[in-house]
Amino acid sequence: MTTLTLILGGARSGKSRRAEALARETGLEVVYLATAEPIDDEMAARIARHRTDRAAHGWVTVEEPLDLAATLAREARPGRVVLVECLTTWLTNLMVHGRDIDAAIAALLAWCDAPTGPAILVSNEVGFGIVPEHKMARDFRDHAGRLHQRVAARADRVELVVAGLPMTLKLPG
Amino acid sequence: MTTLTLILGGARSGKSRRAEALARETGLEVVYLATAEPIDDEMAARIARHRTDRAAHGWVTVEEPLDLAATLAREARPGRVVLVECLTTWLTNLMVHGRDIDAAIAALLAWCDAPTGPAILVSNEVGFGIVPEHKMARDFRDHAGRLHQRVAARADRVELVVAGLPMTLKLPG
Amino acid sequence: MTTLTLILGGARSGKSRRAEALARETGLEVVYLATAEPIDDEMAARIARHRTDRAAHGWVTVEEPLDLAATLAREARPGRVVLVECLTTWLTNLMVHGRDIDAAIAALLAWCDAPTGPAILVSNEVGFGIVPEHKMARDFRDHAGRLHQRVAARADRVELVVAGLPMTLKLPG
Repeated sequence: MTTLTLILGGARSGKSRRAEALARETGLEVVYLATAEPIDDEMAARIARHRTDRAAHGWVTVEEPLDLAATLAREARPGRVVLVECLTTWLTNLMVHGRDIDAAIAALLAWCDAPTGPAILVSNEVGFGIVPEHKMARDFRDHAGRLHQRVAARADRVELVVAGLPMTLKLPG
Repeated sequence: MTTLTLILGGARSGKSRRAEALARETGLEVVYLATAEPIDDEMAARIARHRTDRAAHGWVTVEEPLDLAATLAREARPGRVVLVECLTTWLTNLMVHGRDIDAAIAALLAWCDAPTGPAILVSNEVGFGIVPEHKMARDFRDHAGRLHQRVAARADRVELVVAGLPMTLKLPG
Repeated sequence: MTTLTLILGGARSGKSRRAEALARETGLEVVYLATAEPIDDEMAARIARHRTDRAAHGWVTVEEPLDLAATLAREARPGRVVLVECLTTWLTNLMVHGRDIDAAIAALLAWCDAPTGPAILVSNEVGFGIVPEHKMARDFRDHAGRLHQRVAARADRVELVVAGLPMTLKLPG
């Protein structure tokens, strides 16, 4: 059994579709943990539409923009899989809300060290471009890169998705 | 026989050289379908020089910045291979000229669904950086990512080129 | 024996840690060739701290921001491994100091063609984002991409590191 899976990919790489396929393949109940915040009406409408789509497939949606570790601890358990979409949005939320990022990451990693159930974590790989001009973008990129390294070290399975096709970085067993 | 090949890579990654090597390896007549537009004299001179270089190797150059699907339908046939350089330049042209991008992509995908001959499509992977500041860049990145997923799903062979070295994402058969 | 290794990776990808692990695995004496320039007091302090850390592990640090080929020729020899951190910082230094980049790259490639001892070269892959707005960034990206292709062609081993996990692009033998 793969407990912790990390799916990395670029923008519009098909990483979410890949993660959803892996979630379905488990045959378990799927809880979709959305980290996106509805910052305007258009986004709220899109989030609501996605939630309805998933409900039609029997998936439960949980929304939590900030307290990811606590939500994973509450929602993840044997016999169901939690799909987290996505870590980079969560990092952005932490920065926008002025949260203690190191503490939030430490809490997530503590959960990853002893996961309470299967989880698939999706995240954007953002470190393959030119050094960004703005400090906030550089900080974000640094946080994301370090987070990915640490989660990947704890994951059973890690993939990088390019053009909808997964490349295996780490396999269980 | 590999009918449809997609070669992805970053800037100056060696993706074109890789695509050209694959074209030569087929042993077939090569038609080079260039999507770049000569926007100034320097570029026109460079395009002309490349065309002469290719002619010296017995390759025919066809230039088409916009109507890619129709050109592929006309040029691709059994016994020759069409090398398209490149999809991201074509997407840029569509955006700059205000064309209907969804319709143009649908036409290309329709050709990919029933290719009239072997083709090698080259494109830039642009989705691994920080979210771009400008909306046009974000839209471009979204179009490119979605296009790559859809072409890759239809391709027999997909590669990602890094530092001149191909990583296989999908193999025929 | 692997003489020339190229380790590519994005920002905070774990490429340095990977290169350091490979250096240790050789069992050879390690010379750390740092190309970073201390542009302010904070950076000078960080560089000094890293130098002390490495000295504690028995590694020698050599600092050379510009004349990389000459330094490699002097420091690399059988029985020790030189770890160069990193090529993209070196390229930046060449640009900032107005050096002849083509000449500097030619000198490095000449050394790579006949290396005087084992070396591990670390570099940032920066070509997978949107075309940068500023010409200097575009030039830098072009230089880096072309350099990576040329060094990779001469290397025995090339890896791309993502989230701390190496993907093999080229293997010796």
